[in-house]
Amino acid sequence: MLLHLSTWPEVEQYLQSSQGIIIPIGSTEQHGPTGLIGTDAICAEIIAKGVGEEAQAMVAPTINVGMALHHTNFPGSMSLRPSTMIQVILDYLTCLTKTGFTRFFFINGHGGNIATLKAAFSEAYYHLEMAKIPQAEAVRCQVGNWFMGRSVYQLAKELYGDQEGSHATPSEVALTQFVYPDAIKKAPLSSPVASGHAIYGATDFRRRYPDGRMGSNPDLATPEHGKQFYEAAVKELTESYHNFLQSE
Amino acid sequence: MLLHLSTWPEVEQYLQSSQGIIIPIGSTEQHGPTGLIGTDAICAEIIAKGVGEEAQAMVAPTINVGMALHHTNFPGSMSLRPSTMIQVILDYLTCLTKTGFTRFFFINGHGGNIATLKAAFSEAYYHLEMAKIPQAEAVRCQVGNWFMGRSVYQLAKELYGDQEGSHATPSEVALTQFVYPDAIKKAPLSSPVASGHAIYGATDFRRRYPDGRMGSNPDLATPEHGKQFYEAAVKELTESYHNFLQSE
Amino acid sequence: MLLHLSTWPEVEQYLQSSQGIIIPIGSTEQHGPTGLIGTDAICAEIIAKGVGEEAQAMVAPTINVGMALHHTNFPGSMSLRPSTMIQVILDYLTCLTKTGFTRFFFINGHGGNIATLKAAFSEAYYHLEMAKIPQAEAVRCQVGNWFMGRSVYQLAKELYGDQEGSHATPSEVALTQFVYPDAIKKAPLSSPVASGHAIYGATDFRRRYPDGRMGSNPDLATPEHGKQFYEAAVKELTESYHNFLQSE
Amino acid sequence: MLLHLSTWPEVEQYLQSSQGIIIPIGSTEQHGPTGLIGTDAICAEIIAKGVGEEAQAMVAPTINVGMALHHTNFPGSMSLRPSTMIQVILDYLTCLTKTGFTRFFFINGHGGNIATLKAAFSEAYYHLEMAKIPQAEAVRCQVGNWFMGRSVYQLAKELYGDQEGSHATPSEVALTQFVYPDAIKKAPLSSPVASGHAIYGATDFRRRYPDGRMGSNPDLATPEHGKQFYEAAVKELTESYHNFLQSE
Amino acid sequence: MLLHLSTWPEVEQYLQSSQGIIIPIGSTEQHGPTGLIGTDAICAEIIAKGVGEEAQAMVAPTINVGMALHHTNFPGSMSLRPSTMIQVILDYLTCLTKTGFTRFFFINGHGGNIATLKAAFSEAYYHLEMAKIPQAEAVRCQVGNWFMGRSVYQLAKELYGDQEGSHATPSEVALTQFVYPDAIKKAPLSSPVASGHAIYGATDFRRRYPDGRMGSNPDLATPEHGKQFYEAAVKELTESYHNFLQSE
Amino acid sequence: MLLHLSTWPEVEQYLQSSQGIIIPIGSTEQHGPTGLIGTDAICAEIIAKGVGEEAQAMVAPTINVGMALHHTNFPGSMSLRPSTMIQVILDYLTCLTKTGFTRFFFINGHGGNIATLKAAFSEAYYHLEMAKIPQAEAVRCQVGNWFMGRSVYQLAKELYGDQEGSHATPSEVALTQFVYPDAIKKAPLSSPVASGHAIYGATDFRRRYPDGRMGSNPDLATPEHGKQFYEAAVKELTESYHNFLQSE
Repeated sequence: MLLHLSTWPEVEQYLQSSQGIIIPIGSTEQHGPTGLIGTDAICAEIIAKGVGEEAQAMVAPTINVGMALHHTNFPGSMSLRPSTMIQVILDYLTCLTKTGFTRFFFINGHGGNIATLKAAFSEAYYHLEMAKIPQAEAVRCQVGNWFMGRSVYQLAKELYGDQEGSHATPSEVALTQFVYPDAIKKAPLSSPVASGHAIYGATDFRRRYPDGRMGSNPDLATPEHGKQFYEAAVKELTESYHNFLQSE
Repeated sequence: MLLHLSTWPEVEQYLQSSQGIIIPIGSTEQHGPTGLIGTDAICAEIIAKGVGEEAQAMVAPTINVGMALHHTNFPGSMSLRPSTMIQVILDYLTCLTKTGFTRFFFINGHGGNIATLKAAFSEAYYHLEMAKIPQAEAVRCQVGNWFMGRSVYQLAKELYGDQEGSHATPSEVALTQFVYPDAIKKAPLSSPVASGHAIYGATDFRRRYPDGRMGSNPDLATPEHGKQFYEAAVKELTESYHNFLQSE
Repeated sequence: MLLHLSTWPEVEQYLQSSQGIIIPIGSTEQHGPTGLIGTDAICAEIIAKGVGEEAQAMVAPTINVGMALHHTNFPGSMSLRPSTMIQVILDYLTCLTKTGFTRFFFINGHGGNIATLKAAFSEAYYHLEMAKIPQAEAVRCQVGNWFMGRSVYQLAKELYGDQEGSHATPSEVALTQFVYPDAIKKAPLSSPVASGHAIYGATDFRRRYPDGRMGSNPDLATPEHGKQFYEAAVKELTESYHNFLQSE
Repeated sequence: MLLHLSTWPEVEQYLQSSQGIIIPIGSTEQHGPTGLIGTDAICAEIIAKGVGEEAQAMVAPTINVGMALHHTNFPGSMSLRPSTMIQVILDYLTCLTKTGFTRFFFINGHGGNIATLKAAFSEAYYHLEMAKIPQAEAVRCQVGNWFMGRSVYQLAKELYGDQEGSHATPSEVALTQFVYPDAIKKAPLSSPVASGHAIYGATDFRRRYPDGRMGSNPDLATPEHGKQFYEAAVKELTESYHNFLQSE
Repeated sequence: MLLHLSTWPEVEQYLQSSQGIIIPIGSTEQHGPTGLIGTDAICAEIIAKGVGEEAQAMVAPTINVGMALHHTNFPGSMSLRPSTMIQVILDYLTCLTKTGFTRFFFINGHGGNIATLKAAFSEAYYHLEMAKIPQAEAVRCQVGNWFMGRSVYQLAKELYGDQEGSHATPSEVALTQFVYPDAIKKAPLSSPVASGHAIYGATDFRRRYPDGRMGSNPDLATPEHGKQFYEAAVKELTESYHNFLQSE
Repeated sequence: MLLHLSTWPEVEQYLQSSQGIIIPIGSTEQHGPTGLIGTDAICAEIIAKGVGEEAQAMVAPTINVGMALHHTNFPGSMSLRPSTMIQVILDYLTCLTKTGFTRFFFINGHGGNIATLKAAFSEAYYHLEMAKIPQAEAVRCQVGNWFMGRSVYQLAKELYGDQEGSHATPSEVALTQFVYPDAIKKAPLSSPVASGHAIYGATDFRRRYPDGRMGSNPDLATPEHGKQFYEAAVKELTESYHNFLQSE
C-alpha cells in the first residue's frame, strides 16, 4: 500500500493489523556524466514499492533530498544539512507515532544518508520518550540499504567486478535504466577514473572526482541488469522487513 | 526537464540559458474519507511537470511532506513543523543558488504551506546575502498555488458551486483521479458536512471536522474534471512562471 | 486593561471571566523619507489599547520588532528572522497559556509579519499539545491587521485613492501623526514614486524603492485622518475580537 | 532621539556623528501584590529616554519581555527562554551593525536579564565577525543596570534600608509611580515577607515567595521617590554611556 | 567519588543517600605566554576532586571546553558558543535528573562561563518542568567559582597584590604548577602588561592584550602557592557544597 | 603534546610544522555491573595520549560525554543529543580551523558516537566553506575507533572469543584496569547474559539488557590484557594518523 494513494480510514484499518511503515529515502545529487541526479531516490522508491507489495506493507512518500553536502559543488545537487535532516526525521516519526505507527523501516538509496539517519533515530527515541507519546517505548527504526545487501553486492561483483566503483556505479545506474528506460544517458567517460580518496568537503570532492564518478564505469549498466538488481534487492529487503517486524 | 532525470552536465548546460527552477510542494495529510493522503503532492507534482514541459523549465523533485500539523490527529498524516520547513527551504535554496539557480518558483498544492513558505523566503534572502553567496542579491522566490488560480477557481465554482468546500475538495480529488484513475476511492459521505470553522490545533480540527472534510463534497469529482483542472492550472501557472522569469 | 499596568492578582481575577488577551505587534523599519521608523508598532499599539478599552480586554506589551528583513538595508531598520520570531511567539504563548490565557488576538501593524505569525501559530498549537499543557487544546490565535479592515481600506481609498500605495502609506502615517502630532516630519518627496515590484531581499528592495516608499504619497496624511483611521480600526477590530472570543 | 520617532534619513544623519545606540530592556513579570507587571520595562524605558535626551543619543524601542522564567507560575508573567533571547539579540545587533551602529548600550531593568545578555553579547561578537560584516570588529556591547548604580543603590538604602528587598522593591515601584501616577496600586501586604532564598525554577519560586515579593516592602514607595530615582539613574547612566562611547 | 571511576550500581547506591553531584567546568584557552591552555579545566578539576573527597560527593567528568570566544584569535583556544553550551547543559541535567540527581554544583574555573551557565540553569529548570520529569521541581543548580572565594581572593592579594591581574593570573598558574610541576613554562614577559580594558570580541581582545595576559604577572607563581590555593579553595567550596545540599 | 599542557606560543610554533590534531572522544555511560562509567573516555584518552607521543602530535582535551542516549535509563549515564553534539563539533572545528588546524583525527572510544561524528563532519565542511574561513577547503576529519582496529579485534578474539560481547566488553574493561588498577570492580555477573538485540531507545535497552552488558564477560579482563590492548591500539592508530596526515 502506498500511503499517498490511501485514505485515512484505510490507514486506520491498516494499523489494526500492522504498525510497520516503509520510508524510502534517496538523494538528489550528481551521479557522474551519465547517471541521473535522482538516482538514489529513484532506486529507493522503486524498491520500497516492491517490498511494500511483497510484504503488504505501507510505504510512505519518498524523501527525495538527503545528506549530500559533498556533492553540492556540482550543478543540480541538493542536500539537507545533517542538523536539518535530524529535525525532518523527528517530525516524520512524531506524526506517525502519534497515530499508531511504531516500526519504521527506511529503504535507503544513498550511503551519505546512513550516519545522519542513525543519529536521527537516536534523537527520535529520546524525543518521543521525553514527550511521553503513548507507545514511544515501542518505537524502532531500521535502515535497509538496498545497495549493501549480500545478493545485490554479489551481483554487482559478478557483473562489473572492480568497475562497480563506489559512486555513480553501474548497478545503481542499471536500476534507474530499468525504471526509466527513456532516460538512459550516454556520454564519453574518461578513463581511468579517479578512485580511492576519502570524502571530505564539497570543494575537495569536486577537485578529486572532476566528473563525479568514484572509480565506476556506468557504461556497463543495462536495463536488464537493473531488473536483476531490482529483484534481488526486493527479495532481500522484504525478508529484512519481515524480520524487523517480527523481532520482539 | 525533470531534475531527477537529468545529469549534472545537462543541468550545467541548462543554467547557461535559464536560472529558473520549479519546485513542487505538496503535503501528506488526510483528505477526508475518499481523498488520497498524497493529494496535495500529487497535484503539485503533475502540474509542475506540465508547466515544466510547457515552459522548458527545470523541475526539482517534489517536497512531499509540508506543513500540515493541524491534520496530524488523523492516521497517516505527516507534517514538518514550520521551523523545520524553514531550514529545509534554506538548505534547498542555498545548494541550488551556489551552483547558479536564482529564480525559484514553488508550485504549491496545499494552503497550509503558504505562510511558512513565505516566511522561509524572507529568511533565505537574508541568509544568502549574509553568507555572501555570489548572486545572492539576484535570488527571488515565488509561490504559485494551483488551486487559487483564477481559471481553476472559476472552473471549480461552475462544476461544484458551494460543494467545492475548502478541504478535500472535489477539484483536488478530481485531479488525483485524473492522475491515478486506479486509485479512485468510494465511501459513504455524511451530509451535511461541517464547515466554516477557523483552523487551530490538531485536536480541535478533528473534533470540528470528524471525517476530515471541510464543507466539501468530493463525490462530485470525476477524472474528466481532473483533466480540465490540470489543463487550466498548467496554462495559468506557465504564464505566471514566464512572468516571474521575465520580471526585472 | 494593560498587562504592564496590572498586578498579578488583577490578572488572576481577570482570568476568572476571560481567557482572551490582545497582543500588539508592529515593526521597526524605514517608512520612507517622512514616515516614522516605529510606524507599525505605534499603530498596532494605539489600536490595541483602543480595542482593549472597548472590549474590556487585557492588552499585552507591544512586540516592537517584527519581520522586516527586506527593509534592513535602510539605516535604523530592525528585524527578527522568521525562525527567531517563531521561537518568540512560542515562548509568549507558552507562558501565557500556563497561567490560563487561551485566546490570543494579535493586532498587527505590518504586512511582513503575517506569514511568520501564521507559521508560528501552527507551531505553537503543536508545541503546546505535545508539552501536554493543560488547556492546550483550547488555545486559539488570530491576527487582526488593522490596515486590512474593510472600513479602514475604504477610508484610505476615499481619502487617497491610488496614492495610498503599499508601504509608508498616508493612512499609517496619518495614524502616527494622530498619536504623535509633535513628530510630524516633512521632506521633499520625489515623484513619481516606484511601485508595483514584488518584495524579495533587502538589497533588491532598496534598489527598487530607493527612498523606501512603495507607490505612496504620505504627504497627504493629516492627524485628523489619523483619528478617523483610529476610530474605524478600533471599531472593526473590537468586533473581530468579540467574535473571536465567542466562537465556539 | 527615539528611533521609533525618527525617519531613516534622520538615522542616516545621526550615524555621521555617532555610532552609539541605547536599547532599553525590561521584563514582563509579576512584581508582588502591588507592583506593575511591566515594572522593569517601564523603568528601563523611562531612564533610557532620559539618558537619550541628556546624551543626544539614539534610543531603540524597548525589549518588553526578557528572561523571567522563574516568575512564570504567576498569572501574566511572560518570558523568553535564554536561547530565544540570544537569537533576538543576535538579530537586533546584526541589523543595526549592517547599517552602521557599533556601540550598543543596553539600559536594563531586570536582574534576570543580565546573564543572558552577556552570553548573547559574546555570541554576537563571534557571529558578526564570522559573517564578515564590515565593522564587526568595532562592535561593543555594555549593560547598564539602572538599579545597580551607586547613587541609586545609596538612595534606596537611605529611603528603605532593609525593606528595599530584592524583588518588587520600593525603589522600582516608586519609579513606576512617578511614570504612571494613575496606576498606583494598593493591597494589604503580609508581613513578614519571605526573603533570602536563592532563585531556581518557577514552581520553587512561587512556593518560596507566595505573593511574589522577595523581602521588600513596596508600600514605602512614593512618586516623589520615583522622581529621585529617575534623576539619579539618568545622571549616572548618562555618564556611563559617555564613557562607553569614548573608550578606545 | 568520581563518576567516571564508578559503576552504575555504585551510582544507584549513592543516590540512596545523596542527590548531589559536582560538575567541574573549565575552558581551553590561551593563558598568556606561560600559562597552560588547559589552566581553567585543570584548576576546576583538581578542586572538584578535592571537594568530592571532602564532601563524599559524586564528581562528574570535567567540561573541558567552555565559553571563551574572545580568546579564539590565539592558537589553540577552543570555545562553545553560548547557545551551544546551553544545549550541552540541558542535556547533562536532563540525563542526570532522569535517574535521580537533583542538586548540581558546578565548580568553575573560568569567568567567561558564568553568564552562560546561569542562563543555562534558567533554561534547564523550565525545560525539565515542561518535560514533566519527575522531581523536576526539586532541581537546583549553583556555580562555585574557585577563584572568587573570599579566602582565595585574599591569598592572591597577599601574595601578588596588583600583579594578580585578571587573566593568566599568578594564582591560577600557581595551581596548575602544583598539579603539573613538570609542565611549568618560562618565557620572557613584557612589562608593563596591558590591563583595564573591557572584553568584547576576539579580534579586539587580541589587539588590546597582545600576549594574552590581562594585567597579570604569572612569573610570581610557584607550585607551593598552588598548594595553598588548592587547600583554600577546597575548604571554601566544600562548605559551599554542604550549604547548597542542606538548603531547604 | 597535550594541548591543555601547552601555551599558545607553543601551539603557534607547532602549527609551523603540522596542522594535525588528535581529539579523544569517549562517553559517560553505564558499562555493566563492573565496568566504569567513564570507560570509553578513559580508553580514548589514554590511547590518544599514546598516539600523540608516538606521532609527536597535538592532543586536544577529551570529549567526555558523547552520544549515549540509549544508556540513559541507567543511573550515572550522561549523553548529548546528536543535534547538540553536531553543534559542539562545529564549534570545536571552527575555533581550531580559524587559527590554523586543518586535520582532525578523532580517537573514539564509543560505537554510539560514530554516526553523529560523521554527520557532524559533513556539516562542518559545509559550514566552514560557507563561512569562508581561510583554509576551509583543506579541512579533513577522520574517526579512529580504537576498538575496531584489526590487531585489537584479533587480540580480543584470542583472549575472550565469544565472551568479548559488544558492550562492557572485557577488552575495554581490561584497558581501564591498566589505566586505573586501583579502580578494578568486582561483582557477581549473571549468566547467561543477554545479547543479540538491536539497540533502540533507552527504555527498550534497559529492559533487554538489565545489567547493562551486551553478551560480554568482563570478568575475563586483566590489567595485563589492558596493556596489550593499549600497545596494539596505539601502534595501529599511530599508523592511521600518519596516513591521514600524509594523504594528499
